[in-house]
Amino acid sequence: MAGIVALDIGGTKISAGVFRPDGVMRTRSEAPTEARQGPDAVVERICRTIREALALAGEEAPEAIGVACPGPLSPSRGEVIFAPTLGWRNLPITRRISQQFDCPVILENDANAAAYGEYRLGAGRGSSSLAYLTVSTGVGCGLVLDGKILQGFHESAGEFGHLNVVPEGGRPCLCGRTGCLEAYASGTGIAAMARERMKIEPTALSQYASVTAREVAQCAREGDALCLSIYREAGEKLGRGIAALQMLVDIECVVLGGSVVHAFDLFAPSLVRTVEALSYWGAESEKWLRKARLAPDAGLVGAALLAAQAL
Amino acid sequence: MAGIVALDIGGTKISAGVFRPDGVMRTRSEAPTEARQGPDAVVERICRTIREALALAGEEAPEAIGVACPGPLSPSRGEVIFAPTLGWRNLPITRRISQQFDCPVILENDANAAAYGEYRLGAGRGSSSLAYLTVSTGVGCGLVLDGKILQGFHESAGEFGHLNVVPEGGRPCLCGRTGCLEAYASGTGIAAMARERMKIEPTALSQYASVTAREVAQCAREGDALCLSIYREAGEKLGRGIAALQMLVDIECVVLGGSVVHAFDLFAPSLVRTVEALSYWGAESEKWLRKARLAPDAGLVGAALLAAQAL
Repeated sequence: MAGIVALDIGGTKISAGVFRPDGVMRTRSEAPTEARQGPDAVVERICRTIREALALAGEEAPEAIGVACPGPLSPSRGEVIFAPTLGWRNLPITRRISQQFDCPVILENDANAAAYGEYRLGAGRGSSSLAYLTVSTGVGCGLVLDGKILQGFHESAGEFGHLNVVPEGGRPCLCGRTGCLEAYASGTGIAAMARERMKIEPTALSQYASVTAREVAQCAREGDALCLSIYREAGEKLGRGIAALQMLVDIECVVLGGSVVHAFDLFAPSLVRTVEALSYWGAESEKWLRKARLAPDAGLVGAALLAAQAL
Repeated sequence: MAGIVALDIGGTKISAGVFRPDGVMRTRSEAPTEARQGPDAVVERICRTIREALALAGEEAPEAIGVACPGPLSPSRGEVIFAPTLGWRNLPITRRISQQFDCPVILENDANAAAYGEYRLGAGRGSSSLAYLTVSTGVGCGLVLDGKILQGFHESAGEFGHLNVVPEGGRPCLCGRTGCLEAYASGTGIAAMARERMKIEPTALSQYASVTAREVAQCAREGDALCLSIYREAGEKLGRGIAALQMLVDIECVVLGGSVVHAFDLFAPSLVRTVEALSYWGAESEKWLRKARLAPDAGLVGAALLAAQAL
């Protein structure tokens, strides 16, 4: 017998899991990424982590390997084009892994893999189409339509984080543009807005030496007006993006994942209000807006299911 | 032998064509819609027009009928939900037509049918995905991904005309919202902007008793500053919508049809500039931005190909 292996390669750690073909995890193994040691060392550690997970499952060889990785990347070429958190450029990761394991290796963007996991076995189970949004340091997105991940012509569909939501005078984004959704609705954006506004507005945030989205959420829950308004703004900008998605693609359900989802109660009301105002299908948000169910394993589960499908 | 019949039902006229299965038109027949006579009279006239087109082709019966109609409508239920220009509400048009012809009848939104026609035999031939935008009285849109029309969960994908492009303080739209793309970039929107601004700004438009998008284009070509800026604004708003489409769906080509395309030279520069500024794939517009090739028959051709496929 052999197992389906799934990998989730992040900036901090590498997770490998051995899965049954139906997406149930049998064993898992983890290792720190230590990207600074360079791609060769990381690929070595990836392969060791795979072997460990296989050994735990009592398996000798993988049947197929699914790799979830931050992008931009090319699933069709099996190549990571640029992964800033890993320091990778044009790395043919599937070829590098299949040199050590004689089986099919497939690559997918981590947000797409998580979207596929949630679609098949998580919050989107039974839906015809799903958008998965991961709101964390940045904002990632994966779209699944009629059972298939939407890749797009340049393999770059679902660039939700860099959708423009403020046409004029928007906040600068790390991508070099202004007015991107991510500049408002990511953990980074929320913290940056707070740090700017606390210089000129009274807020309980002043008690903290360093301010991240977490402190902003904490003060918001204690009734701090500035912090409440920042989450309201983040929700409104997410709502603008989701409204555009609904008008153009008309998706059955939107699943929210990522660390910022802990503040769901703080941004969901303005998000829903905005989607209602700017699209046809904003009402009945309990039907279309859902929290992720598989986090933090959605990417692994999705990669396993995609690998199983490649067989 | 029998023929594939395609219908295009518009507010002004009904067109019926007999087609070869490969989408080549053999004969056509037309009749005025005269919607004020009510749905029964229009359905009667539709069936008569079909029989005329068949007779011209020397056919007795249709093999399949494809119907392109303004929406919103439900292709799956074969029902026009609401067509203001026809005065139809909840009309089961495919059932009404199949009562008179013993063959499959399929229904499609006119913009979707035109998108499919352009995808298969027009400006999008050979592309993997296409967005067709028809800029006329209103703004319609059809999306074709991997050979299939994107319907969406509520069968309402591609609501491009009512995509919000001005989040705050936007122009009022006929739909009751503000800031919709159609309020700026349709023939109606262009004329309305002109009529408002000519009250307070000097313009050559003052020579006309009545102003439509056509007069605005004419004066713009003669160098009128106000008219030039109105087409620039229409192009910029179209660009915002196309940029959102490209970031979310990543489409290979965007095909522009509809009467306002006669002013392509006036709005294309600001359209392209905006897509370049707000999306990743704006450069090389000669590759992705194209004028429609099948107009005004794109809807008929698409409906014929869809009907042939239903066999």
